Amino acid sequence: MRVHNFGAGPCTLPVEVLEEVRDEFLDFGGSGMSLVEMSHRSPEYDAVHTRALELVRRVGGIPEGHEILFVQGGATLQFGMVPLNLLAGGRRAGYVLSGSWAKKAYDDGAAVGEVYEAWSGAESGFTRMPDPGELDLLPDTRYLHVTSNETIDGVRMVSWPDEAPLVADMSSDFFTRRVDWDRFDLVYGGVQKNLAPAGMAVVIGRRDVLEGAVRALPRYLDYGFHAGSRSLGNTPPMFPIHVMGKVLERIEEQGGLEALEARTAAKAAAVYSAIDTSDGYYRNPVEPSVRSHVNVVFRLPDPEAEARFLEQAAARDLVGLKGHRSVGGIRASLYAALEQESVDVLVEFMEEFRASA
Amino acid sequence: MRVHNFGAGPCTLPVEVLEEVRDEFLDFGGSGMSLVEMSHRSPEYDAVHTRALELVRRVGGIPEGHEILFVQGGATLQFGMVPLNLLAGGRRAGYVLSGSWAKKAYDDGAAVGEVYEAWSGAESGFTRMPDPGELDLLPDTRYLHVTSNETIDGVRMVSWPDEAPLVADMSSDFFTRRVDWDRFDLVYGGVQKNLAPAGMAVVIGRRDVLEGAVRALPRYLDYGFHAGSRSLGNTPPMFPIHVMGKVLERIEEQGGLEALEARTAAKAAAVYSAIDTSDGYYRNPVEPSVRSHVNVVFRLPDPEAEARFLEQAAARDLVGLKGHRSVGGIRASLYAALEQESVDVLVEFMEEFRASA
Repeated sequence: MRVHNFGAGPCTLPVEVLEEVRDEFLDFGGSGMSLVEMSHRSPEYDAVHTRALELVRRVGGIPEGHEILFVQGGATLQFGMVPLNLLAGGRRAGYVLSGSWAKKAYDDGAAVGEVYEAWSGAESGFTRMPDPGELDLLPDTRYLHVTSNETIDGVRMVSWPDEAPLVADMSSDFFTRRVDWDRFDLVYGGVQKNLAPAGMAVVIGRRDVLEGAVRALPRYLDYGFHAGSRSLGNTPPMFPIHVMGKVLERIEEQGGLEALEARTAAKAAAVYSAIDTSDGYYRNPVEPSVRSHVNVVFRLPDPEAEARFLEQAAARDLVGLKGHRSVGGIRASLYAALEQESVDVLVEFMEEFRASA
Repeated sequence: MRVHNFGAGPCTLPVEVLEEVRDEFLDFGGSGMSLVEMSHRSPEYDAVHTRALELVRRVGGIPEGHEILFVQGGATLQFGMVPLNLLAGGRRAGYVLSGSWAKKAYDDGAAVGEVYEAWSGAESGFTRMPDPGELDLLPDTRYLHVTSNETIDGVRMVSWPDEAPLVADMSSDFFTRRVDWDRFDLVYGGVQKNLAPAGMAVVIGRRDVLEGAVRALPRYLDYGFHAGSRSLGNTPPMFPIHVMGKVLERIEEQGGLEALEARTAAKAAAVYSAIDTSDGYYRNPVEPSVRSHVNVVFRLPDPEAEARFLEQAAARDLVGLKGHRSVGGIRASLYAALEQESVDVLVEFMEEFRASA
């Protein structure tokens, strides 16, 4: 039995990948040991590591001038590493406060240097993204930090601002959409939503940015340490790196990011359609043009109905649908490995539930 | 086929644990999903997390006044987090430079604050540890940093200094020996040698130390963030945490740390005996009283003999025996899950190889 997993992260992974990992778990490639028992300096692991780096570059379409790093600590450590490496000497950083995750990045920036709100969605209840020309940028802005998708608020950034060098947290829609990487000084994303088990972030940045930390730092916190060692300066998180390689291979086989972007949009459209044709029974508060493609949030008429909805959904093996504890309601996360079939089952359930309400 | 894995880390894990992980990999506890696909906020994962914390405390004999943290980034991130959280305001930290790893901790301390060498084994080629009374401690020393075992140099600290509050990197002999935790302000160890797949360190520290960071820090770098959230403030490395729980359960079933410490000493004694009875054919340079119990380093008469040794060992499925690239020679790592049987095969091979040389 396999459930339909709409969890917001960690989240569903391709069952074919899980089966492969299981089948090779005790004896990796005839080595007589598990991958997780292997030296990270061995030729066998080096091949895994190199393949993962190559797949990130090829599937993501990362240009040669950008370096790819595997760093433990998830996006949360990146909230601190970005300003530690980039922000000093009288310069400041603007943050687009688009939701709960942007706020965390901003707070950690403030612990390191001078940061400011370039825009805030607080007044709208985080249901919007900035329109062109709406940003307040100050002089000497080293970077503008944006969040490509807010996992809790269900809002996404559709087009990128061009007023300042960009840094982006892309954790929740990382590798579900094509990106013009040349627009970004640095991008980071936790892997546990679309790509792999929890345990690291992938950092993609311009080589000169990654190698030019603005202050002396302990080595793990210095992007240059990772860039200069192909992320092998200390023992890397080998298991998530390996699984990510397999997931990316599968994305590539299924048509790459262009096809995945289309599949993701189609999954989102199906759920939003169920909401929008419910005569107001289901309500999504987000401005339609910036609705998230990976985290669809909605409310029912009252909390009691929401509790019944979750209970009856679980009885049909539809799980992980509870909204974030800070906002309540329902949230259907539609990450890369969630099949259209699971969405179809959800949509059918939503219609039946409403009809019986 | 399963090889005898003497790798220095990542390293061998109990095959029974690997089998359990494999068997449950696609459907954890009847949930219809893999553990690695599960929300870290779910009751199922919470039980795994809580059990791992309890096992660390019970198996390690951690006193109530000490808190246990799971932090990504391995010991390498701890090299920086220790001084960031503990060192400021005109105080300084002494480091015992006992080998390659102590040097890295020292360098990262120097990137943050005022540090000094309290003792160095450089003159002896890192074959000694400080004798009582040999340390040079300066006034206003906030902590003295020691390395319980040097993985590359094969030397261990047998008794702990008592001149200053102690911080220790115990990565390589973590949870293979009993520790009087009350002697330490803070201890950290990467899990990938004795406990779990690579991907985190376990940090054990006095509660007031962990909650009293001396400067404003981005949240992931502040021990208080992890202490205040049971290491669930962001998505934790669920897979290594889960495997570590199973490994600790097995250590407990086999008599706990006291029994493991005795088994580890016996494994080391067998290899050192093969060295010491070889009429000088095998040579270990370390002062006998501080020879490592988990990393036995030795040389043969010349590099050609060492190359032949490694080649013929591999033919008997004895792998991971090559010394660290910075020092050469042979290194047999005898971590917690390495069976006595593997040591017996190694010792027999060492005797045969010498006889045929």
